[in-house]
Amino acid sequence: MTDTDPSLEADVFARNCSSREALQNATSRWGILSLAALAEGDYRFNALRRRVDGVSERMLSQTLQTLERDGLVVRTVLESIPPKVEYSLTPLGRAVAEQLTGLIELMQSNLPAVLASREAHDKR
Amino acid sequence: MTDTDPSLEADVFARNCSSREALQNATSRWGILSLAALAEGDYRFNALRRRVDGVSERMLSQTLQTLERDGLVVRTVLESIPPKVEYSLTPLGRAVAEQLTGLIELMQSNLPAVLASREAHDKR
Repeated sequence: MTDTDPSLEADVFARNCSSREALQNATSRWGILSLAALAEGDYRFNALRRRVDGVSERMLSQTLQTLERDGLVVRTVLESIPPKVEYSLTPLGRAVAEQLTGLIELMQSNLPAVLASREAHDKR
Repeated sequence: MTDTDPSLEADVFARNCSSREALQNATSRWGILSLAALAEGDYRFNALRRRVDGVSERMLSQTLQTLERDGLVVRTVLESIPPKVEYSLTPLGRAVAEQLTGLIELMQSNLPAVLASREAHDKR
């Protein structure tokens, strides 16, 4: 597809299709974990940063901005002193996060098989 | 979890858990597309490279090696002259690819909403 007709034939296998970029934003190193964390509930920035262990302030901020721009995450400023900023999923973000959560559970539960495969592979 | 007990408490949210690495291997830029392509059927290297539009020979080769090491992809050398090499999914690879295919379909079908969100965001 091209930029002129976004609804027709979105195809992540085509190098210039915007759907490939949207997929990559949602499945970036920190994108996956941010979306999966927000599937648990809304988070304020610092709490989300603690949940997504290892992410820097800068990378989490960039990741959330990208997901907000793509319409997967909503940033809400709560009127309080000091103002609180909360992140939550949009309906599309929730649907994406559900797919990602299934993938994560699959990977976690099959980790012993993955590690055994690596060990066998490295012994060759 | 630590490397000493891989079966206990695999948790992608923990920065040192191997399941995070396995998740990232399967959801790398080219990992996702390779697995989704192989869900369509077995592929020889060059055909897979054509299907995963834009990938370099080197990156596809590295991606397939990583997925093979993690036990998601099998590389089979067929006895012929010249020898043919075919790539296919393991049962775990197929389960992972099914989750990824669901995610891809979701992204492709919601691309108009993603593009509209980007446009609204950039106008702010």
